[in-house]
Amino acid sequence: MIHKKAFDEQMKHAVYKAIFERRDMRHFNGEPLDEAILQRLFEAAHAAPSVGLMQPWRFIRVQSSELKQQLHALVEKETQVTAEALNDSKDAFLKLKVQGILDCSEVLVVSLMPKREQHIFGRRTLPEMDLASAACAIQNMWLAARAEGIGLGWVSLFEPEALQELFSMPRDATPIAVLCLGPVDAFYSEPMLIEEHWAERGELKNYVMTDSWDGSKEAQAQKQWQTTES
Amino acid sequence: MIHKKAFDEQMKHAVYKAIFERRDMRHFNGEPLDEAILQRLFEAAHAAPSVGLMQPWRFIRVQSSELKQQLHALVEKETQVTAEALNDSKDAFLKLKVQGILDCSEVLVVSLMPKREQHIFGRRTLPEMDLASAACAIQNMWLAARAEGIGLGWVSLFEPEALQELFSMPRDATPIAVLCLGPVDAFYSEPMLIEEHWAERGELKNYVMTDSWDGSKEAQAQKQWQTTES
Repeated sequence: MIHKKAFDEQMKHAVYKAIFERRDMRHFNGEPLDEAILQRLFEAAHAAPSVGLMQPWRFIRVQSSELKQQLHALVEKETQVTAEALNDSKDAFLKLKVQGILDCSEVLVVSLMPKREQHIFGRRTLPEMDLASAACAIQNMWLAARAEGIGLGWVSLFEPEALQELFSMPRDATPIAVLCLGPVDAFYSEPMLIEEHWAERGELKNYVMTDSWDGSKEAQAQKQWQTTES
Repeated sequence: MIHKKAFDEQMKHAVYKAIFERRDMRHFNGEPLDEAILQRLFEAAHAAPSVGLMQPWRFIRVQSSELKQQLHALVEKETQVTAEALNDSKDAFLKLKVQGILDCSEVLVVSLMPKREQHIFGRRTLPEMDLASAACAIQNMWLAARAEGIGLGWVSLFEPEALQELFSMPRDATPIAVLCLGPVDAFYSEPMLIEEHWAERGELKNYVMTDSWDGSKEAQAQKQWQTTES
């Protein structure tokens, strides 16, 4: 058993600092990512919680520059299709930098494991809990990367089937992320989508209800969107 | 811009310590959870990344003891149904403590926001990215809780529709978690499902492939399950 005591103040501060200063990065300086750091990030990911301990995360390191180019092309293609689907927000969207695949030093594809249907614990009514577990693994990696001074960006602008084909994945292994990792010149002081006026941060009080759904809080929480995406 | 530098060694250590010593807790000592700590945990959750910055997480604090009892009953019911579905693993499963709703000091229901279909950025091909964002929020809360010396357990043994009804939620707000929070006597030294021999931790090297899917690594990663759940 590990003793229950809380971390000391300085260590608590470090954890909160990683949480509050973590950013979804799209700008990298192209410097190499130290292999020892990358291994620590994988270990952090692999220490994530998972439903029934199924450990559903799989990582593919993309090292071939030809594959990186093809992956970049697939993300560019989906970026255009998304832009068209956004109608009025199309121009604002196309001004954003939405990925850093060719600028970063390490590209990872994260996928859910195949044969997930055999895992029932915690998933009988909510089969998507495997994705939740894999997201926790990526969040661990993100926070560890921030502590290491390394940027990480999660890109989900792709057709999963196209990635399955590109990386010869089984049909029941679902890609959920393209991660761009590497040294950065600086971390954004606010999430880039706030800096670029794409969205605003909602007020926390509107996200916490008591004992029952609260429609008036929900209306407030939805409000920052009415001035932006819709 | 925030300077790019890595955290110092002691602060890095704190972040990794939270990551490696975080546990999915089911045992609580029933002591109250300080309100100031809970607020910091909510702030940590709300600092999570989210796809297109949609901030899809919603929290319902369950303070009514009647609602806690009803929630407990719903989880108990699904636990029995899951046990039946597990066939050969039924007895092993029923020996596990799978929730701490009546023992912990704070129960939260986490749900995805309604009207998610209006958010297209990063979700056109992968609409489930909103769940990934909410899972990152819970992971932030989990790590902050560990630093605060507070236990957190994520329970997904429930019928989402039953929770929607219990908390008068809109039909398009999907509950994804019942979180149990509170002081604990000690954190498990290994994930409880490992301590209880439900599952083993896979070897990290089998979870990291290069440039292409690797069926032999996958077979190794799946192997720890052949001795347990199947």
